[in-house]
Amino acid sequence: MRDEVTEETGETRPIPNFDDVRIAHERIRPWVHRTPVHTSTTFDSWIGASLFFKCENFQKAGAFKARGSANAVFSLDAETAARGVATHSSGNHALSLSRAAGCRGIPCTVVMPHTAPKSKMDAVRGYGGEIVTCEPSLADRERTLNDIVDRSGAHFVHPYNDSRVVAGQATCSRELIEDVGSLDAIIAPIGGGGMISGSCLTTRSIAGTTRVYAAEPDQADDACRSFHTGRIIPDDAPDTIADGLRVSLRPLTWHFVSNYVSDVLLASEAEIIEAMKLVWQRMKIVIEPSSAVAVAAALKNRTLFSGQRVGVITTGGNVDLAKLPWMDTA
Amino acid sequence: MRDEVTEETGETRPIPNFDDVRIAHERIRPWVHRTPVHTSTTFDSWIGASLFFKCENFQKAGAFKARGSANAVFSLDAETAARGVATHSSGNHALSLSRAAGCRGIPCTVVMPHTAPKSKMDAVRGYGGEIVTCEPSLADRERTLNDIVDRSGAHFVHPYNDSRVVAGQATCSRELIEDVGSLDAIIAPIGGGGMISGSCLTTRSIAGTTRVYAAEPDQADDACRSFHTGRIIPDDAPDTIADGLRVSLRPLTWHFVSNYVSDVLLASEAEIIEAMKLVWQRMKIVIEPSSAVAVAAALKNRTLFSGQRVGVITTGGNVDLAKLPWMDTA
Repeated sequence: MRDEVTEETGETRPIPNFDDVRIAHERIRPWVHRTPVHTSTTFDSWIGASLFFKCENFQKAGAFKARGSANAVFSLDAETAARGVATHSSGNHALSLSRAAGCRGIPCTVVMPHTAPKSKMDAVRGYGGEIVTCEPSLADRERTLNDIVDRSGAHFVHPYNDSRVVAGQATCSRELIEDVGSLDAIIAPIGGGGMISGSCLTTRSIAGTTRVYAAEPDQADDACRSFHTGRIIPDDAPDTIADGLRVSLRPLTWHFVSNYVSDVLLASEAEIIEAMKLVWQRMKIVIEPSSAVAVAAALKNRTLFSGQRVGVITTGGNVDLAKLPWMDTA
Repeated sequence: MRDEVTEETGETRPIPNFDDVRIAHERIRPWVHRTPVHTSTTFDSWIGASLFFKCENFQKAGAFKARGSANAVFSLDAETAARGVATHSSGNHALSLSRAAGCRGIPCTVVMPHTAPKSKMDAVRGYGGEIVTCEPSLADRERTLNDIVDRSGAHFVHPYNDSRVVAGQATCSRELIEDVGSLDAIIAPIGGGGMISGSCLTTRSIAGTTRVYAAEPDQADDACRSFHTGRIIPDDAPDTIADGLRVSLRPLTWHFVSNYVSDVLLASEAEIIEAMKLVWQRMKIVIEPSSAVAVAAALKNRTLFSGQRVGVITTGGNVDLAKLPWMDTA
């Protein structure tokens, strides 16, 4: 029988295994990039390690989320798919789900707070998604989404608390290990825990000695506190520039975080901004603040990674170029 | 006998051929990146063509100039090399020559106007180069450089009016064609003409049907005027954001431009800035304004490239992140 986790509501959710990852990888191959791995002698010399940056900022729709969304959308049976998909998100999941639905030719409805950046709304519409605005509260988001699901029969795809999504995200670290060989550690940012769960799933299946580190903003340290307490501690109104990391763990991702993560490493807002700027300056790639959290964690934990081969997941590159964080601090 | 061009001074300079390019490529291989080629379905759909972006922004020292500099530095005999190299430049050539000299373990002196950006000066020193400042005029640059050469016996490496440098730059389009196959056209920015000369040298040797287009700012259109007049017209105090393109053609590069370039395409400052921003936003790579000129030329000449396979050389990625051009216009 398949392992599963149980939600607060009593609902169960299967824990994906590596067969699910293999199937996901085949399924999404036509719809996502096999992103390149970049290296930097400058960063290597600063940290005293060999870093391998898995560039999901070059992924379709600008973030790794394209993987999980494509896996969810393309695993639906025809009848379910025909009714469309829906989600609530003001970030990269909104873009990637709209894009995946567009690829399959089915409707996608995204509930976004009316305060969401216009650029993100434009991008969702550009991929063919329909936006329904709501008040900027989780309660109103969920109520609005439930109304849509009830009315249209659309299939809800959660950004991370979904076995298909986690299996999709796991393809990222699988490619990384296939392309660069064995790694001592992988560092990825943690918000809801989808990418970290996928990384744990891959490493324990095909790279048992590779440690997985989650990187989190000081100012949104719920995963760190959960990790050290031994139970999910929800967000307490986190305020961080790493806008992709403001959400909380859920039972499915907590399963992976609590069982397989080596540690949760924190970075301050200043460290995140500095790391982001250094990557842009030295590596000439555009990464978003959430990605920079993983780089910041590598930079401030040199002794932990000294002499090692370390994968760093640069998870996305969707930023508002007119509002760069160092413009105020430069 | 080898073909050559004659300078105003009566000095002659050999015209490099494709054997020189092959030798250069072997020589510089340990010292430069074979940069990746990126594609973008978004740009392809905008232009109605298949674009192949040769990412020299990922090159060592952040620009294609690393190729020519490495070829020049590593082709010196031991005795000449021991006396070091020197140049005048406030831009990417200063960085790349310092780096190449550092790789070979020989001194490098760079004459820079005291008005040059501190970030560029820091980078030169970071690569081990020594900076001698001068007044921001060509006359004072050249006088200061001549003093250094007279005193130290250092070997002058011109940023582009140098056969070894042109042969080195030619390796860029060679890699591009090797990696993506036949191209209908290559677009590259033109300042002094080193990259364009190298592109012409490669295409006429291994890709005879590939047209080469030079892209130039409206506000520094000396190459365009030269091209249409049939003789070198020097810069008339050009003022453009594309700071790498403010210099003039010289006899060696004029040879290639006048004989092998299909056309010189112009772009306004606003078009350059818009193209740069679009590349950052959609392709998630950091390119400098000079590179964006080539992208702007592609965007505004859709009919010229419609349905074609087009290489675009994104020549460099060295920008001051604290002074981005769209910050004023956003």
